[in-house]
Amino acid sequence: MPSTMNQQQAISSERRFPRVVIEQVAPQLDGGRHAIKRTVGDMLAVSAAIFCEGHGAITARLLYRGPGEDEPWSSVALRYEVNPDRWFGEITLDRLGRWEYSVVAWPDHYQSWSRDLRLRLAAGQDLESELLEGAALLEETQARHTGERAARLGRAAEILRDSSAPVADRAVLALRSDLLDDAFGPLREGDATLYERTLSVIVERELAACGAWYELFPRSQSGEPGRHGTFRDVEERLPALAALGFDVLYLPPIHPIGRTHRKGKNNQNEVQPDDVGSPWAIGAAEGGHDAVHPELGTLDDFDRLVRTAAEFGIEVALDYALQCSPDHPWVKEHPEWFFVRPDGTLRYAENPPKKYEDIYPLNFWCFGWQALWQECLRLFLFWIGHGVHIFRVDNPHTKPFAFWEWVLAEVRHRHPDAIFLSESFTRPHRMNHLAKLGFSQSYTYFTWKNTAWELREYLRQLSEPECLEYYRPNFFTNTPDILHEYLQHGGRSAFRVRLLLAATLSPSYGIYSGFELCENVPVRPGSEEYLDSEKYQIVTRDWNTPGNIKRDIARLNSIRRDNPALGRFDNLTLLHTEFDGVLAYWKTAPDNDLIVVVNLDPHATHETMVHLPLERLGLGPDQPFQVRDLLTGERYTWKGEANYVRLDPRMRVGHVLSIVRPGS
Amino acid sequence: MPSTMNQQQAISSERRFPRVVIEQVAPQLDGGRHAIKRTVGDMLAVSAAIFCEGHGAITARLLYRGPGEDEPWSSVALRYEVNPDRWFGEITLDRLGRWEYSVVAWPDHYQSWSRDLRLRLAAGQDLESELLEGAALLEETQARHTGERAARLGRAAEILRDSSAPVADRAVLALRSDLLDDAFGPLREGDATLYERTLSVIVERELAACGAWYELFPRSQSGEPGRHGTFRDVEERLPALAALGFDVLYLPPIHPIGRTHRKGKNNQNEVQPDDVGSPWAIGAAEGGHDAVHPELGTLDDFDRLVRTAAEFGIEVALDYALQCSPDHPWVKEHPEWFFVRPDGTLRYAENPPKKYEDIYPLNFWCFGWQALWQECLRLFLFWIGHGVHIFRVDNPHTKPFAFWEWVLAEVRHRHPDAIFLSESFTRPHRMNHLAKLGFSQSYTYFTWKNTAWELREYLRQLSEPECLEYYRPNFFTNTPDILHEYLQHGGRSAFRVRLLLAATLSPSYGIYSGFELCENVPVRPGSEEYLDSEKYQIVTRDWNTPGNIKRDIARLNSIRRDNPALGRFDNLTLLHTEFDGVLAYWKTAPDNDLIVVVNLDPHATHETMVHLPLERLGLGPDQPFQVRDLLTGERYTWKGEANYVRLDPRMRVGHVLSIVRPGS
Repeated sequence: MPSTMNQQQAISSERRFPRVVIEQVAPQLDGGRHAIKRTVGDMLAVSAAIFCEGHGAITARLLYRGPGEDEPWSSVALRYEVNPDRWFGEITLDRLGRWEYSVVAWPDHYQSWSRDLRLRLAAGQDLESELLEGAALLEETQARHTGERAARLGRAAEILRDSSAPVADRAVLALRSDLLDDAFGPLREGDATLYERTLSVIVERELAACGAWYELFPRSQSGEPGRHGTFRDVEERLPALAALGFDVLYLPPIHPIGRTHRKGKNNQNEVQPDDVGSPWAIGAAEGGHDAVHPELGTLDDFDRLVRTAAEFGIEVALDYALQCSPDHPWVKEHPEWFFVRPDGTLRYAENPPKKYEDIYPLNFWCFGWQALWQECLRLFLFWIGHGVHIFRVDNPHTKPFAFWEWVLAEVRHRHPDAIFLSESFTRPHRMNHLAKLGFSQSYTYFTWKNTAWELREYLRQLSEPECLEYYRPNFFTNTPDILHEYLQHGGRSAFRVRLLLAATLSPSYGIYSGFELCENVPVRPGSEEYLDSEKYQIVTRDWNTPGNIKRDIARLNSIRRDNPALGRFDNLTLLHTEFDGVLAYWKTAPDNDLIVVVNLDPHATHETMVHLPLERLGLGPDQPFQVRDLLTGERYTWKGEANYVRLDPRMRVGHVLSIVRPGS
Repeated sequence: MPSTMNQQQAISSERRFPRVVIEQVAPQLDGGRHAIKRTVGDMLAVSAAIFCEGHGAITARLLYRGPGEDEPWSSVALRYEVNPDRWFGEITLDRLGRWEYSVVAWPDHYQSWSRDLRLRLAAGQDLESELLEGAALLEETQARHTGERAARLGRAAEILRDSSAPVADRAVLALRSDLLDDAFGPLREGDATLYERTLSVIVERELAACGAWYELFPRSQSGEPGRHGTFRDVEERLPALAALGFDVLYLPPIHPIGRTHRKGKNNQNEVQPDDVGSPWAIGAAEGGHDAVHPELGTLDDFDRLVRTAAEFGIEVALDYALQCSPDHPWVKEHPEWFFVRPDGTLRYAENPPKKYEDIYPLNFWCFGWQALWQECLRLFLFWIGHGVHIFRVDNPHTKPFAFWEWVLAEVRHRHPDAIFLSESFTRPHRMNHLAKLGFSQSYTYFTWKNTAWELREYLRQLSEPECLEYYRPNFFTNTPDILHEYLQHGGRSAFRVRLLLAATLSPSYGIYSGFELCENVPVRPGSEEYLDSEKYQIVTRDWNTPGNIKRDIARLNSIRRDNPALGRFDNLTLLHTEFDGVLAYWKTAPDNDLIVVVNLDPHATHETMVHLPLERLGLGPDQPFQVRDLLTGERYTWKGEANYVRLDPRMRVGHVLSIVRPGS
């Protein structure tokens, strides 16, 4: 710190003072504390404010290092744009893993000199001394290079010094653009300023950012009332799920379920002998987090399910829920991993005064925490060994943030294709922080945002520039815990509205099974819990129940695959509608502009004018154009900024309109 | 980095994992790279997002260290506010200098336990084991304390363990709020998270942020045509300047002026024997930056001027202009401090192909730069030794940023009352960066912002929250280099408009002498240079020229002293007016609300409705209230949001309206 340095120290030390200032390097999160996120193949566009005193020219380069590369940096040129007075550069992130980037810049003495020389030449000034100065710069540079480069510089310097040659000829040589370029590096030792922080970007698979998820309970898949479903039964459902167009099949915990304090149907404390219990009460005599529930089949059956799913283009995602039933093997083997009470018993999960006696939370700060954390890491690696590369992580905000930062990095270092979905419903700081620590994507408040105002506000939050760098939303329409009253009371149209919103607003979205059948009965009025919830019992369904919305699902998932605009979240523009209950938005990608219009009222027809940003869409104010509804194939001719839409929810809840470009 | 750590390393090392997350600590600049600014007596309000996993309680404290204090941190409690889910704390900055601050937080196990105990007690649960747990927590804490504290905890633990006493009595003791408070610190070694950055705030004198400046050329102060003014002549002007209410008297360079390539009148290259040259061509046979121009008097005369000014409540500010005339002693003593050309001559200041042959720039990166930088530091200290504590720094953006960071810190470390005004007119990044590096205040683009749109836009930029943390504007109405065409063509009313704006918009403002006489003749059409500029010749003025606006100046400076709302810049709210050419704004401070309304058109009368934020002003929509014009004493009765104003620039260019509160 200059302020605490005395006079002698300041001057006698070999302290390096930066020649060039580099600041506002973007993107970056929290001053470089956290990595931003991209998917493989993405361009990383970096910009910075770079400047020095006076009028001197600057050269700047973007430094980067791919995963596993230690030294040295690779680099590409940064280019200056006078407006907005910033430097810009890009690299393509062509490999999975954690990349690093930074910026280096130096005063470009030769460029300054040659720029001035050009001006002096035009003004007819005496250049003799200037040319000698240029020669000296070339010679200084020459001394830092070898071979043909050095030789070329030496020859050029010689010509500049040759006072017998005409000044104009020598000047022309000095101004040759290829004489010195930024590849030559800084002229003098110590000239270069390295930006003070090394920034990081985690590069993941496309599926980390974009995919359609389907959640089901394997035990409910037998199709026969009274028979416990198996992995084989799940296999049977794969063709149907593939036909619906899902990318990810997420299974709640598949492990042995505890018997002690098992919960009965509808979460009652009274339990019947045939009650199957909650799959989140993990662990029994048959094993813990690395075992499968015997009634579902064997580990081999599971492996087969994973393989068969892959043949259908579907990846299996597992639940990663770090809690134990009282019967979990860890309870005997590692009681120290739990909260031991003074009376020697273990503490149940609780939210005083409520107690959840079928599960024990783990004590991540216990004496011996290292072994516990290591075991948690092993569980990830175990299931990756069985072909699972996607994990839906249960309630991560009830485990230490430091644990997640550590374990996600450990897994990703070994398996950069691993994907982690954070199932955290808590205050925004904590949800955001989990995303910053490395979760690939996150559940959101989407289920609770049903009015136009709520949706607009929330989408604005998720679209904030910083948020886009790390928080990838996954819009689930429902979960085994959340049946929103909008769905309870809105009938089939409500399900169609929410499906349309989820599938077109967010690149990642999901439904929990039963949604396609418009299941809407809560356990009691005012509750968001399902009646006869699958969390506590087997549910047998007829997948062809009349009124199902499987056609909508298949159509939307097909549209999602065909339209890259739906694969990104940073391309969303909310549009003005004259009736607030109709939400409209524009999603854009190269050659792919979609206007989605949704009537949020499941009960009544509404009409409105939808306002388009004509200029940004490249459309003239008086030029008619066609839009095609990708849901129905119908075409409409639109013109001007405001266009009419009428939506009768009994017929259709919305449009997904593709702007038809001439020649497309 | 977790990602590069192998399994064994991760677990065997004594790596500390933070228990609590601390992020978004505000205020901070560029991730803590730069200090924010305050003035002495200010409150520093710090906030942070602090959270941990689960439901555990947290204790957090704001750490701070006054100037020169090394260890340990002092601290005050941070308090949690559920909305907006942040922690808040304040300290009073009661000393000049560089303060440091940070945040520490830890899980508060005892608070979590006692909060849960209260809930269990209310639910009538068995507390026996809980009380033992509380006793254990008290005993753990006891082990980290001594004396009466430890004894008190020991006695409490004993009672909690006493199973013969009624549970309820023991619980009541455990819930006593004074049993354990945050002063006890974290329960366990390693529990505390220290925020990863130490942040800084530079605390300066009030005058660093707020003051009225007057610039004059001492050589023009004789009052007699043909006689070179002296420091004694400047002394003679002090009573008048004090009567006008100025706080700072800024003098352009007072050093010997070079003769070689001296510029003639109106910046002509032809020079007459009696031409006095530009004071910025510093240095002659008589001395350099630490000498005074003999025709102005002696150093003793200067010291006397400084002392006399102080008696009038005026501080003298000097120009700090690091450049040399060809006759400066350094040119002979230290030619290596300049740019030596290959032909052995020194390089003039230039902006190719233009050359400024009366000055040489210094080469701050020369071989031997350490001695040059040290000498520049010595100059500051030399003049501080002569009672000068305010420096107007000429063109700082043409010297290295690293130099300024170093030299300002060095001076401030020794003299925390030193004030530095950056005279930089360049691109915003560079102006802002100089402010971040330590300049107390900065010139601005104010002179070029004359329309309502320009002013509104610019005021919005200066009022951005981050900007307020480091960029203190000084609104000069004019300078020896800038006579804006608005003043050239707007007559006396234009001068009154600009004075009113400068004095009421910005806590620091200034005029360059001649402004009060409405001098408005440029050297040629289209130029912002004055005709017969004082930069190159002596100008004798009659300070009582008819049409002068000295009454306005005296009145405004008096109003500024009486109204704390004019002493801050973070309290500005632009108001809506129905005619855009009338600018209105609200400045607020406790018990001091001013509404300033200015007709920006110096030529024509305009009327408009001015819209007030009634609710924020604490006024009802139907409640009449009085406003008093502090310029004239007139009172008006206003009511409701929109109020009528009519401004005839021949009479008055604006109002400074104080809202009269009942009983005030």
